[in-house]
Amino acid sequence: MQLLITGGAGFIGARLARTLLQRGHLNGQAITRIVLADQAPAPADLAADARIDARVGPLLQHCEGLRSGAVDGVFHLASAVSGECEADFDLGLRSNLDSTRALLDALRHRQAADTRSGAAPARLVFSSSVAVYGPDAAVPMPAIVTDTTLPTPQTSYGIQKHICEHLVADYTRKGYIDGRSARLMTVTVRPGRPNGAASSFFSGIIREPLAGVDAICPVSPEVAHPVSSPQRTVDGLIAVYEASRDAYGGRTALNLPALNTTVAEMLAALEEVAGPAVRARVRFARDERIANIVANWPTGARADRAAALGLLPEASFADIIRQYIADCRAGHPVGQPDALRGLAG
Amino acid sequence: MQLLITGGAGFIGARLARTLLQRGHLNGQAITRIVLADQAPAPADLAADARIDARVGPLLQHCEGLRSGAVDGVFHLASAVSGECEADFDLGLRSNLDSTRALLDALRHRQAADTRSGAAPARLVFSSSVAVYGPDAAVPMPAIVTDTTLPTPQTSYGIQKHICEHLVADYTRKGYIDGRSARLMTVTVRPGRPNGAASSFFSGIIREPLAGVDAICPVSPEVAHPVSSPQRTVDGLIAVYEASRDAYGGRTALNLPALNTTVAEMLAALEEVAGPAVRARVRFARDERIANIVANWPTGARADRAAALGLLPEASFADIIRQYIADCRAGHPVGQPDALRGLAG
Repeated sequence: MQLLITGGAGFIGARLARTLLQRGHLNGQAITRIVLADQAPAPADLAADARIDARVGPLLQHCEGLRSGAVDGVFHLASAVSGECEADFDLGLRSNLDSTRALLDALRHRQAADTRSGAAPARLVFSSSVAVYGPDAAVPMPAIVTDTTLPTPQTSYGIQKHICEHLVADYTRKGYIDGRSARLMTVTVRPGRPNGAASSFFSGIIREPLAGVDAICPVSPEVAHPVSSPQRTVDGLIAVYEASRDAYGGRTALNLPALNTTVAEMLAALEEVAGPAVRARVRFARDERIANIVANWPTGARADRAAALGLLPEASFADIIRQYIADCRAGHPVGQPDALRGLAG
Repeated sequence: MQLLITGGAGFIGARLARTLLQRGHLNGQAITRIVLADQAPAPADLAADARIDARVGPLLQHCEGLRSGAVDGVFHLASAVSGECEADFDLGLRSNLDSTRALLDALRHRQAADTRSGAAPARLVFSSSVAVYGPDAAVPMPAIVTDTTLPTPQTSYGIQKHICEHLVADYTRKGYIDGRSARLMTVTVRPGRPNGAASSFFSGIIREPLAGVDAICPVSPEVAHPVSSPQRTVDGLIAVYEASRDAYGGRTALNLPALNTTVAEMLAALEEVAGPAVRARVRFARDERIANIVANWPTGARADRAAALGLLPEASFADIIRQYIADCRAGHPVGQPDALRGLAG
């Protein structure tokens, strides 16, 4: 089978590609080729794999070729992030809304052109986000959001993600694709540099101290938020892809599993795993812009449909930190040799 | 003040224009000009009014001129209807999604170009629809939908309306417009011919018998549905326009008032108002296509936010029929001289 991962050179996309290559199969079929479409070049380890076809350029450009190209399944992860979308309204509409529609239309036209009788439409997993939830004056947000909570997004990013969920549902209803939308929780610990997302500090306050670098937490310790590790997130995307339509249930987006935690608990876990000296590298300095964005985010999430698919959150934030440390020791993330310089021993 | 009504030559648009011209003011300002943008020519009575500027052509075309033209307020009613959108997917996306976005962008660029300090963004009322509600396997629909029911639309029309609600909310949040979305209930009694909407029979089973014409009801008498009269609908749009942002509450769409009724009650009201001979002109012959679409619609609606604005539904369906008869006698709808030929006396 041939797969396409948009945003395939990104953090989640590359990890998904590595996981899929290691498995060798998806939904009972051998994986023969994975196209990684991204604005950035693919990591070297992926580019070196014979099954990987890395393509660099805007997604809108890739979509043209898709109309005739062979593809059995798509993981659509490409996206401008929340901070970018707030700063540049047109960029958000183009990167998140127009590109998704072009992708769906390409798959639709491919399906229409497929003359094999009963040919299945391409399966697609769309990575939506917990950012679809937010408080509206007319619709208070519950402390814990669920699969059936009414999304009233308070950022352009959240609006665009939610709009795309509805497009995926309608293209699926019409039989143009076999689409599923999974709402990612905030993924932590992300490697590398802050990425412009307002949620970036949820990784920074763990990653920087482990690297021996001081970190600033822009919100108060009581801030609560649903998070997930990179690997649980990737496992969730794969499980949603492999679910039968009946098991997925309906066409509405589902929440991926969340570990509901607080900044204070995250830092306590950091001390538990890495010691008090590492924990001491984090200090609090409120950033009004970020704090105001975060104040509109849910403080926790429940993922009943994902649980029915067998997907569960991590047991503790310490486990998430241990996953990051193990990744660094195993050579992931690529090019971060100093990622654990802050750890004693 | 200068107003734009998209779909201004349509049934609701023209009635809205007549109501506004008769009032002479909106939100405390004198109405000096109303642009009616529509694919069809405006009714003669409107075209003859010096304050009316009727423009015929696709909405996408009109939007170009809007970027520099003067407009204080917009009622955005133009839309392809549900049956059309199911039959022609691209038409629905173009007419409902692309046109709305072009309109919002035109207002946004106008606002950005307005160098008067503190110039208010254009106020906009978007006519959404009760069609945003539908049952999804993962999200059962309540019998009575409310302002906070999660929309999981089961038609392209409903999907597109709901997407536009979210665009209106985000353009409003950003300060580009002062937007409000009001979900219209099924408007009945519509004059003229069936219009391609799957809900067309909700008018046909009243209108045709009153005109002395036999009518077929394609669904069973037990079918329940939230409806509203043309005038209550227009009054609702005006009230939503005039509401302060605080009174409107948040940025999420609200339901306009609904009279929750059944086909059997509608026909009983017809007999009450027009006599058994008129009622006898309706017979039941199930149309699977229409019945299946209607089966996915809500059986009733509640409109708490509209009620807080002072908007209430009709007391009975007989009142709705009486409004239609009074309209016909007063010369509305224009060009329907035989509309009451079926009435005795």
